[in-house]
Amino acid sequence: MTREEDFSDLQDQPGDTYTSDLGVQSPALYRIENLQLKNGYCFPYAQISYLTLGKLSADRDNAILICHALSGNAQVAGLDPVTGRPGWWDYHVGPGKTIDTNRFFVIATNVLGGCNGSTGPASVDPLTGNRYAMKFPTVTIEDMVRAQVALVDFLGIDRLFAVVGGSMGGMQALTWALYYPERVRTCIPLATCIAHSAMQIAFNEIGRRAITSDPNWQQGNYYESQRPEHGLAVARMVGHVTYLSEFAMKTKFGRNLQREAQADDMFPMFFSVESYLQHQGESFVRRFDPNSYLYITKALDMFDFLNGRDALASIQARFLVVSFASDWLYPPDQSRDLVRVLKRQNVAVTYCNLDTPYGHDSFLIRNPEFSRILSNFLLNEYENQKLKAVN
Amino acid sequence: MTREEDFSDLQDQPGDTYTSDLGVQSPALYRIENLQLKNGYCFPYAQISYLTLGKLSADRDNAILICHALSGNAQVAGLDPVTGRPGWWDYHVGPGKTIDTNRFFVIATNVLGGCNGSTGPASVDPLTGNRYAMKFPTVTIEDMVRAQVALVDFLGIDRLFAVVGGSMGGMQALTWALYYPERVRTCIPLATCIAHSAMQIAFNEIGRRAITSDPNWQQGNYYESQRPEHGLAVARMVGHVTYLSEFAMKTKFGRNLQREAQADDMFPMFFSVESYLQHQGESFVRRFDPNSYLYITKALDMFDFLNGRDALASIQARFLVVSFASDWLYPPDQSRDLVRVLKRQNVAVTYCNLDTPYGHDSFLIRNPEFSRILSNFLLNEYENQKLKAVN
Repeated sequence: MTREEDFSDLQDQPGDTYTSDLGVQSPALYRIENLQLKNGYCFPYAQISYLTLGKLSADRDNAILICHALSGNAQVAGLDPVTGRPGWWDYHVGPGKTIDTNRFFVIATNVLGGCNGSTGPASVDPLTGNRYAMKFPTVTIEDMVRAQVALVDFLGIDRLFAVVGGSMGGMQALTWALYYPERVRTCIPLATCIAHSAMQIAFNEIGRRAITSDPNWQQGNYYESQRPEHGLAVARMVGHVTYLSEFAMKTKFGRNLQREAQADDMFPMFFSVESYLQHQGESFVRRFDPNSYLYITKALDMFDFLNGRDALASIQARFLVVSFASDWLYPPDQSRDLVRVLKRQNVAVTYCNLDTPYGHDSFLIRNPEFSRILSNFLLNEYENQKLKAVN
Repeated sequence: MTREEDFSDLQDQPGDTYTSDLGVQSPALYRIENLQLKNGYCFPYAQISYLTLGKLSADRDNAILICHALSGNAQVAGLDPVTGRPGWWDYHVGPGKTIDTNRFFVIATNVLGGCNGSTGPASVDPLTGNRYAMKFPTVTIEDMVRAQVALVDFLGIDRLFAVVGGSMGGMQALTWALYYPERVRTCIPLATCIAHSAMQIAFNEIGRRAITSDPNWQQGNYYESQRPEHGLAVARMVGHVTYLSEFAMKTKFGRNLQREAQADDMFPMFFSVESYLQHQGESFVRRFDPNSYLYITKALDMFDFLNGRDALASIQARFLVVSFASDWLYPPDQSRDLVRVLKRQNVAVTYCNLDTPYGHDSFLIRNPEFSRILSNFLLNEYENQKLKAVN
């Protein structure tokens, strides 16, 4: 296993020497007036953090929207201006990379309900002057996409060449293809599903319960006091285990001990994997809002592609669906369910199940086979689009 | 799915109408003087809760020790005199059942370090007059077995006909066969492993972290105040998910909603699986000590059968090893690793991987195929033992 495969989340690796060809890239903010949610709630205004990379072509036909997973943000690549850390998909996005910013105009946003620049529970409600906290409206994946649509309008793009995303990002990509069929040329859902299973809901509920049972949570009104950091750390630890595979954990940690036993240790054996998970929990707490974690995981659980059953027939996008054999959180069967649904509608679908051993996080890490499949699909489809435009 | 397969833990199902043929069965207490642990620590005395069922034969050759898993206790079968609930393995232990108490003399104990009658962190340290709390010594699976050995001596049994156990109980069974080779005729480890993998340690560490980061934990000194119930409930929720299979959760819950949305709900969709997990967490809290959870999970993580490498050659027991295809917490590969180790020592091993879809908890639930395999093995081996004694 190379260094690049060793750790999935570039944003959680302080001290790592990996850097980005893109240098510092600062996300911008876009303010949406009167953003209405599906449930009828209307934000007087909502702010969306976004980053663009590369150049929009004269024909405005090369825009790729990249949607992040649960813990991601607009910093898809390049160095974060504050932390100096590379973006979460920097392995795959940049000049000459899988998604080549020399050819494509990349757009990435932080989701509505998030905590990295976009309006979320930690934001101030202009109607009350107080932070929303748990008065933030329930947001769905569809609502996240509504905010992205407003941004894409603002950027003057009628039709996205591609919408790409893994895990929750894949659900956003599916939602684009379903409800904005004329605005999506290709749709690329990775390591995702058409609806969470009971087990996926269960893992999310454990995380939510860890947060809400932390006394510091205080019904979500912790912004002026101690945050429920312990609860959020436990939630992240649960999530993190589900993102890895048995193989990845065995290779990384096995039964290695972190260090020799010390006199004040609670128990005489302190395993490396315990130390690693604790680090993951603690570093996540510094960059994530616990209330956002509640809202976003619930949006994941509520997502159901087949709720849009009536819209299925109108899908125009051509699909690349990718799953990973060792992904036990979003097992390949779930991608195959998606492919089956699409095929029944006569949608053009390419499906690959990749035999990588790194679990759900496989879509985040360096992987030449994955890169080749994704970049070839993009280049071929882009060529096809050009030809079609000429003819 | 029948009612019997629907819920794994008989002790956590209040309101259920299942009852036991054995009627009320009250565990007894045995006091061990000067119980020395492997690390040198010596309890001036330790108390072990135990239950016996059936009759010891005149030849004292029909004793079966049943070892419990993480959350079990001495109440292996029969009704708990306090709660009225059936014992955790009542489906399989009783007159005419898989382990037939008309033929066999069953012994079950609560493990050392536990919280259901045996000496554990909640017990009073006779040396200080205070509860042990986190001053309780680190106990290992081998130490749990030492306490059982003292009890078996007290019961006047030189050689156990069988030691049976699932999960942590399987580790105890393995430890008996390894370190007390002349005292074990047959060894039956179910759904277990020779050592925890990084992933198994990780899930346990999440549970421990949930407990120790609950402010009520107070370094373990919560006995006179509020207990860290929220942390323990989260720990149990994590554990519970790992005991079930995707199939079991899908069949039980799918994406069913627990009820119509209510005005004061945090989110508009409250899934049945969330309600179920919350119930599991809350009911567990009433019967388990958080500090015991820390000690016992650590004992699980520290167990390593191959640490007893030098003793392997002395194993005399004949083995039945059973794994379950859908068990992703203790996957069948781990049982095959065990079989391989034993075979290399020329130990007599029968191995079955059963194709039940209910995950790790498969060994706890009603299952005719499992019953047949286990009861036939016991009856055949008992016949063999008799024949050998005659010849």
